[in-house]
Amino acid sequence: MKILTLNCRSFFISYQLLEWTDRAVLARGIVDRVELGDSFLTLERPGQPPQRVEADCPDHRAAIDLILQTITDPAHGLLARTDELAAVGHRVVHGGETFARSTIINDRVVEAVHEMEDLAPLHNPPNVTGIRAALALLPAVPQVAVFDTAFHQTMPAHAFIYPLPYEWYEHYGIRRYGFHGAAHCYAARRGAALLGRPSRECNLVTVHIGTGISICAIKGGESVDTSMGLTPLEGTMMGTRCGDIDPGIVPFMMQEQDFTARDMDRILNQKSGAAGITGNRLERPDYLARAAAGDERCLLAAEMEAYRLKKYLGAYTATLGRLDAVIFSAGTGAGEWLIREKALSGMELFGVALDREKNRRVQSADREEFIGAAGGAVPIYVIPTEEEMVLAEEVAGILGAGPAAHFSPAA
Amino acid sequence: MKILTLNCRSFFISYQLLEWTDRAVLARGIVDRVELGDSFLTLERPGQPPQRVEADCPDHRAAIDLILQTITDPAHGLLARTDELAAVGHRVVHGGETFARSTIINDRVVEAVHEMEDLAPLHNPPNVTGIRAALALLPAVPQVAVFDTAFHQTMPAHAFIYPLPYEWYEHYGIRRYGFHGAAHCYAARRGAALLGRPSRECNLVTVHIGTGISICAIKGGESVDTSMGLTPLEGTMMGTRCGDIDPGIVPFMMQEQDFTARDMDRILNQKSGAAGITGNRLERPDYLARAAAGDERCLLAAEMEAYRLKKYLGAYTATLGRLDAVIFSAGTGAGEWLIREKALSGMELFGVALDREKNRRVQSADREEFIGAAGGAVPIYVIPTEEEMVLAEEVAGILGAGPAAHFSPAA
Repeated sequence: MKILTLNCRSFFISYQLLEWTDRAVLARGIVDRVELGDSFLTLERPGQPPQRVEADCPDHRAAIDLILQTITDPAHGLLARTDELAAVGHRVVHGGETFARSTIINDRVVEAVHEMEDLAPLHNPPNVTGIRAALALLPAVPQVAVFDTAFHQTMPAHAFIYPLPYEWYEHYGIRRYGFHGAAHCYAARRGAALLGRPSRECNLVTVHIGTGISICAIKGGESVDTSMGLTPLEGTMMGTRCGDIDPGIVPFMMQEQDFTARDMDRILNQKSGAAGITGNRLERPDYLARAAAGDERCLLAAEMEAYRLKKYLGAYTATLGRLDAVIFSAGTGAGEWLIREKALSGMELFGVALDREKNRRVQSADREEFIGAAGGAVPIYVIPTEEEMVLAEEVAGILGAGPAAHFSPAA
Repeated sequence: MKILTLNCRSFFISYQLLEWTDRAVLARGIVDRVELGDSFLTLERPGQPPQRVEADCPDHRAAIDLILQTITDPAHGLLARTDELAAVGHRVVHGGETFARSTIINDRVVEAVHEMEDLAPLHNPPNVTGIRAALALLPAVPQVAVFDTAFHQTMPAHAFIYPLPYEWYEHYGIRRYGFHGAAHCYAARRGAALLGRPSRECNLVTVHIGTGISICAIKGGESVDTSMGLTPLEGTMMGTRCGDIDPGIVPFMMQEQDFTARDMDRILNQKSGAAGITGNRLERPDYLARAAAGDERCLLAAEMEAYRLKKYLGAYTATLGRLDAVIFSAGTGAGEWLIREKALSGMELFGVALDREKNRRVQSADREEFIGAAGGAVPIYVIPTEEEMVLAEEVAGILGAGPAAHFSPAA
């Protein structure tokens, strides 16, 4: 059963073609510089040298058409025809309060996602454009929308309502939505499988470390709180996003510096976080390597990030009342040991004790690892998560071929 | 030893006259509508009916002069002359990074407080005006500045630096300062006394509930983190202030509604928090009473407030690594039991267990109470705090007559 996943962003589309029967990635890549000129497609296949194809993509439809041509090109031996696709899965950032789960796309779904563009002005418009293009190009293939927000729709009101004028919630949808939902859901299901207990009996904190970072408190398989909010800006400190700050800083600096709201939004999203502290927009492994080597500003950034993560672990343990496991998903690359070590130090009261040596040895993202100390009450796991695999899993679930995957042994 | 405390705000001054030797309040009151016209002074003395004096106060100097005339009026029998005052204590909101403790006021201190007006544009200017007027009127009386921020100057960098462009810290002083410092310090000293252990051995979380609400993690007598930040807006949900929100909401709503930075600042400070949720600016006891009676919106507000407090308790327990006591100070009036009960429910993992009946019986603010369950690992106390008494205690400390008070039995 072949599944194509698409993540349509403003100026690029990433794609992945999977054979779901054996969870094999057949091909993956990106079409970059869509609409910008000089666009190109990359193609990676297991055991083959990566390829790059220059092709003009003035819009998302042209880019998706290029992806479809590429995966049906006889030279690559991937698909003979697009009707071999069992489904296409679209990552959609914002599902608002309308979508509490992944859903088969029809006109009403497209319209609803379109109507939520105000809530995710950077993300939902290219998502909608991509969906419309894919529907036009593949009218006979089932297409599924997987929402970043859907998994968090189980949060109780006291966790998702902000202490702001209540009519902002009623009229403008200002509330906590949370993101990375499918990834947190996947990490929690794998965590329960590793614990050998049903999801409904597990209280977990999952930490998703990617370009953005978010944390989720999961009780009995359901999200009860998460660190990202109306936007992906809230929560822990990220690569370029500030996460939690005194909201009074925003009007203060606007008045001090004559910044517009748009300026401020850009600074908080693109010039803050680790980049703000170090003064450089370093790749995450580089920033962590410099911190480990003692670079003063990188070390401060790492200490801030870890400390803020530690506070969330404490807060969400209070939310859950009982903690059965801590799970670090996604960013499990070299260097991440430093953040885990600092964040989990001194957490013995919570039953959380790290095996420092094991933790330091986890340098790659290719398998699940247990990094708790022997005798620690609360297991600590590192679980690689690949967004596209999670997306495909949601799609397979909708098609009735999915959930068991969560309980399969680690690849 | 008689001490006069002054809290000079934009349009009013509150004052208190104490006989420090026996911690007796001789008189207290307010001069209201300073600069606004129709100004008046109120005077309360133990066992006497309250008085009200109409008197024109075009500026803070006139208002302080009115206070001095009142307390030396032979009709009241308080002081014969102002030189009987051992000291005047001024509450000063922002001491920036300059003041890590209370200090005797001289010209350099006044200048330094004046220079920090940018950081507290609503508070420091009237504080400076009041100090200058009091120095002119009482040149021979020692005057002491007690800073809301000073106690928190022990926070480590990873707790006080924000994940924002680092130059904002260097050039504009954008960092966490925290407020209510003297009150947290007092609560922690009393907590240590009640535990029967030296402050340096106690890890405490103190919750200060007044017009503003702030929480502090205190390790060995020193503040290591606190919920308020650059401004008093950050942290837990308050009466009209939002506390922690997604900072992305600020530019979002500004663009959505064409709000200015000043509009936004006003809404977040004055129209949010419990007032934002309930739609009414209720007095705190009224809002809590309605919540207890089941009013839907008041109950939501109380649940939000308690939940956010619970998360801070969890976060600061993680910060401290070990928790020796939880202390609720200040707002210990009727109705507060509801917030304490909701915030502390399900915290057994932290060793925190409330005696629900005892907690519900604590209805007044006049004495220290132990409200932990028998056998709970972490004691829970309610400790009344009066800002003016804390202020006087700081003043007495500076004059060499103070600290022992913290260890005296409750009045």
